Amino acid sequence: MDTTPTSALLVEERSDLGEVAELARRLRVDSLRSSTAAGSGHPTSSLSAADLLAVLTARHLRFDWSRPDLPENDRLIFSKGHATPLLYSVFAAAGVVGEEELLTGYRRHGSRLQGHPTPVLPWVDAATGSLGQGIAYGAGMALAIRRLQRSPARVWVLCGDSEMAEGSVWEALDLAGRERLGGFVAIVDVNRLGQRGPTALGWDLDAYAARARAFGCRALTVDGHDLAAVDEALSTAGDGREPTVVIARTVKGQGVAELADQEDWHGKPLTEDRCAQAVEELGGVREVTVRGPLPPEPTPSPVPPTTPTPARATESGGPAEAAGSGGSGEVKLPVFEPGESVSTRSAFGKALAALGSRPDVVVLDAEVGNSTHAQDFAEAHPDRYFELYIAEQQMVATAVGMAARGYRPYAATFAAFLSRAHDFLRMAAVSQADIALCGSHVGVEIGADGPSQMGLEDLAMMRALHGSTVLYPADATAAAALTAEMADLPGISYLRTTRGGYPVLYPDGERFPVCGSKTLRRTDADRVTLVGAGVTVHECLSAADELARHGIPARVIDLYSVKPVDAETLECAAEETGALVVVEDHRPEGGLGEAVLSALAERRLSPAVAHLAVRVLPDSGGTAELLDFAGISAAHITAAARDLIWSETDAGADAQTDAGAGAKGARTSAG
Amino acid sequence: MDTTPTSALLVEERSDLGEVAELARRLRVDSLRSSTAAGSGHPTSSLSAADLLAVLTARHLRFDWSRPDLPENDRLIFSKGHATPLLYSVFAAAGVVGEEELLTGYRRHGSRLQGHPTPVLPWVDAATGSLGQGIAYGAGMALAIRRLQRSPARVWVLCGDSEMAEGSVWEALDLAGRERLGGFVAIVDVNRLGQRGPTALGWDLDAYAARARAFGCRALTVDGHDLAAVDEALSTAGDGREPTVVIARTVKGQGVAELADQEDWHGKPLTEDRCAQAVEELGGVREVTVRGPLPPEPTPSPVPPTTPTPARATESGGPAEAAGSGGSGEVKLPVFEPGESVSTRSAFGKALAALGSRPDVVVLDAEVGNSTHAQDFAEAHPDRYFELYIAEQQMVATAVGMAARGYRPYAATFAAFLSRAHDFLRMAAVSQADIALCGSHVGVEIGADGPSQMGLEDLAMMRALHGSTVLYPADATAAAALTAEMADLPGISYLRTTRGGYPVLYPDGERFPVCGSKTLRRTDADRVTLVGAGVTVHECLSAADELARHGIPARVIDLYSVKPVDAETLECAAEETGALVVVEDHRPEGGLGEAVLSALAERRLSPAVAHLAVRVLPDSGGTAELLDFAGISAAHITAAARDLIWSETDAGADAQTDAGAGAKGARTSAG
Repeated sequence: MDTTPTSALLVEERSDLGEVAELARRLRVDSLRSSTAAGSGHPTSSLSAADLLAVLTARHLRFDWSRPDLPENDRLIFSKGHATPLLYSVFAAAGVVGEEELLTGYRRHGSRLQGHPTPVLPWVDAATGSLGQGIAYGAGMALAIRRLQRSPARVWVLCGDSEMAEGSVWEALDLAGRERLGGFVAIVDVNRLGQRGPTALGWDLDAYAARARAFGCRALTVDGHDLAAVDEALSTAGDGREPTVVIARTVKGQGVAELADQEDWHGKPLTEDRCAQAVEELGGVREVTVRGPLPPEPTPSPVPPTTPTPARATESGGPAEAAGSGGSGEVKLPVFEPGESVSTRSAFGKALAALGSRPDVVVLDAEVGNSTHAQDFAEAHPDRYFELYIAEQQMVATAVGMAARGYRPYAATFAAFLSRAHDFLRMAAVSQADIALCGSHVGVEIGADGPSQMGLEDLAMMRALHGSTVLYPADATAAAALTAEMADLPGISYLRTTRGGYPVLYPDGERFPVCGSKTLRRTDADRVTLVGAGVTVHECLSAADELARHGIPARVIDLYSVKPVDAETLECAAEETGALVVVEDHRPEGGLGEAVLSALAERRLSPAVAHLAVRVLPDSGGTAELLDFAGISAAHITAAARDLIWSETDAGADAQTDAGAGAKGARTSAG
Repeated sequence: MDTTPTSALLVEERSDLGEVAELARRLRVDSLRSSTAAGSGHPTSSLSAADLLAVLTARHLRFDWSRPDLPENDRLIFSKGHATPLLYSVFAAAGVVGEEELLTGYRRHGSRLQGHPTPVLPWVDAATGSLGQGIAYGAGMALAIRRLQRSPARVWVLCGDSEMAEGSVWEALDLAGRERLGGFVAIVDVNRLGQRGPTALGWDLDAYAARARAFGCRALTVDGHDLAAVDEALSTAGDGREPTVVIARTVKGQGVAELADQEDWHGKPLTEDRCAQAVEELGGVREVTVRGPLPPEPTPSPVPPTTPTPARATESGGPAEAAGSGGSGEVKLPVFEPGESVSTRSAFGKALAALGSRPDVVVLDAEVGNSTHAQDFAEAHPDRYFELYIAEQQMVATAVGMAARGYRPYAATFAAFLSRAHDFLRMAAVSQADIALCGSHVGVEIGADGPSQMGLEDLAMMRALHGSTVLYPADATAAAALTAEMADLPGISYLRTTRGGYPVLYPDGERFPVCGSKTLRRTDADRVTLVGAGVTVHECLSAADELARHGIPARVIDLYSVKPVDAETLECAAEETGALVVVEDHRPEGGLGEAVLSALAERRLSPAVAHLAVRVLPDSGGTAELLDFAGISAAHITAAARDLIWSETDAGADAQTDAGAGAKGARTSAG
């Protein structure tokens, strides 16, 4: 069904191997020239794969270069992202990047031709450059193409041989094999030399093939410089029948005698003189262009494909404007009764199931869907729920790949285990992928399972991602509203959910804009502000009750939006109460406390701040005893608040006799 | 060589399969009783592997339970860490955990019998509970045992079948297969049921076997409840000849009709009534003990093994006391001339090579040793240098495994790619493993390679690890000294190194205690303090020069110890200058800036702080232009300092007319 005879015939008519050989020479020449002009880059890693790319782009890749967004286009992913001299030379040969841009833009500040590819370029779906990732994005895209879009588009991934050592590669091939992703083709450029020397497997193509087959993929071995053999292998690989790994024996630096199969040439451009000689050796600069096959015209499918709607529901406005159910029209969020005991993870699951009414929402699980409650979605929308098994890297990569196909993926696992995919999250931020993540079972709150299962570093990881949004609801109403909100947020958004059930604090219909907060207790006489998020909000409320019993009015803020943080409300609290206790079920570094300190510093505010966080190595135990052991229970909050008020009063008596009680300890800059 | 006939005969004499069957029943009974008593845990995952463990501990595991530290002991690792009911039942049957502890301690706060195993227990080498990790630690330990210690000790790892989906498992088997780690045995408990339902491969033992073989390991398939068959398989597996994966078909919940092969029983204990019935079904409580073989007495090896010295050079004192070359005696650190241009990564390599004079130091590379300069060590000490290829998870796991064998591992790669091993680092912190890490190529400083290669989130990741030390030297002298210092630090220590060469700032012999800093510029009239680390120290110095040209004296602090941070020096600077500009080549979240803000808040200090960090998505370019683009160059620091002084002067005029210039903006609490 995927290889339409018509387009195959067209290819035969207008392309022959002589022209392909010419194209390969052009790709080599331009790879050398661009990297020499830049003064850095990876020409030898490009030369090994030039023949593969010439055959692929001239005869197999069905791509309309003038319409890169066409859903029927095949996809081309450079998992060996450092081979940008080759990739950009392909773009130049396809006529979409000019010679001047190639020779003056490569690796320059402000240019789109970066050292490693990013989706700033319209022909790049996901940023690569961290090895073992492109193949994973490719598998994720192929899953969307096959299972959701039912498009004949194929996914061609160029891999290096060194990167086959990354475990993530085997998660990707496991997915491709298990799901029988015909049209997914990984081409491994086995040039036997890594960065600092020979690879472990060298030119043992059979070893690679055995591994690929063991993971359920078809494996083809080929001489990567024999154009006819490559052509035949890619014809088979692209037949859409089976996920395929083409293992190509190549020579690093092939085409230039001085470079061929030499160590110590990784990531080094030639000098201008040597480059000129090499170009001469290759027969000089060429103009031959890529004239590969076009994608087939879309034909009506017997089964209607699942078509995503445009990802962004609102065109303008900040995060607060793009808020919540406003962006998702017909979504009927679950309703919770204030006071009822509900876990935020179960609210997430119910909200997710409701969000399924949006056809662009897909949900990804890493074999814990009954714990994260992502599984609620599966019951309502089994066709858009994907089980990735315990392979968190591939789960996040699938999210990135599906986002590149226009979907709004939600991927959920224990917060602790999202750290497994940290490098993929880092790269997803470079890709500026719009993906929603949920991390459950956070903090010491989980109790008996112990520290291996406690998400205690996730806020630090998620906050530090460029362009991320970090949300941490304290109750079910907030969790459901924020889950819906994430469907329209740009970039990586993260929802942190709690294991146990806690009283619902907010009524149905309450809005939770990103960058907002909720002030749960407030009087004009407040002498301290208790700032929490998630489970610590409930501890703060208990502490406020206890303080009230001792005649100390305390403000309580639910800072559910950890990034961006509601600096305005914090400023007001700092000015009015002069003292803040910030409490988080997370390590003291990089989480809620430091988010608050950063916001205060930016506004030149300096209330006295006590920061309660998990500074111990916790063990197993009950929730209440572990919150107490970690120093973040109501009792500790109460004590910290009393200490602050005591020392502030004392300090105020010493140094700030002229300041009003309301402004005690708060100071703003003039600017 | 490993299976001494003598010890094998002893086993035959004193143990028969009837006793093994009794032991299996005891393990099942105690797994049920302990989890029911705790009210949580994973009894069914324990029951599936009870026969495997009975055969293993009664007839194969050579372990002197009274001397767990004996180097000749085999190692036992539960990669399926949730099966603690079984593990602790083994300990009980071995007589090292009492019945009362098992029935009242399991999963209780303050008990060593946590929900998942940690090295708080003397029979546990590394914390597990994040799946796919135990097998990786096991491979790392086997590498140390085989290549360094040349001991006959074997490493037995119990894996779950669900965790075989983790890519890290294949990195581990790749290492075991490549290095021919005879004595490494992974036993996979294929009970076909994961947490939320069937695994992808079910009971397809051949599929698992094909994968294991493709990765270079011997694979044996067996009925995991046929004691004789298991006994035979483990005899072969333990022959020390080849790394082996035993793939055992088992039934989850085996032994209790109600539980056997049933879904929805994962992680659920029986009620007391049902437990009592199940125990009855199993024939009641038993007292049979583990009387397995003892390890062979050490015999002189023809090649002298590499013996590690005790890991901690000093017994007492804080980090500052255990400092630097003091702890490492004969180590001759490299010398650098002040003013000379040297990169901190090359200083790291030279220092590492010098540290090789300590026999306990081992170095691990992820195929970038020529970039991180870890390779310098390989030239001097090839026997203690290990190439892990591009498998960062296995690199960190190997470090943890080798640390458990008494070595001081240094593992180095690009800082960006350490994020790949984040979950392993998180668990290493739970293990309280003493390992040193180096992350090179940090920040936008690297230039042309672009954002995929820039470590911009590593400080946040490393600071948030429990008990970590985070160091970021600005020059070669500091880098060399801190590299040496790390060899004696407890827990995870991290050195952040820079790609480019910068002037040496410090003379030979300068000391760099952990929790210290260097004040590079200082007068009594300083009006602002510029705080940097690494490359930004040099930008701060340029900015101070520029400010001086405009008559503004500025203090400059090299805050090379990011965690713990030198709060005293910051306090002094805050009080004396009233204004701080903190500059880092890192994301604004979780790094140097927030470390400073936390330290100031803890001391109730509130100078005006400007925080310059990488808030943009960088592209490729030159170092200088990217530092400027990111807003962290000297020009930006100068501007920020001037703004601060301006607004502070203004604010001072408004509100603090009674405060002296020196104390401007600084405020301390009375407490």
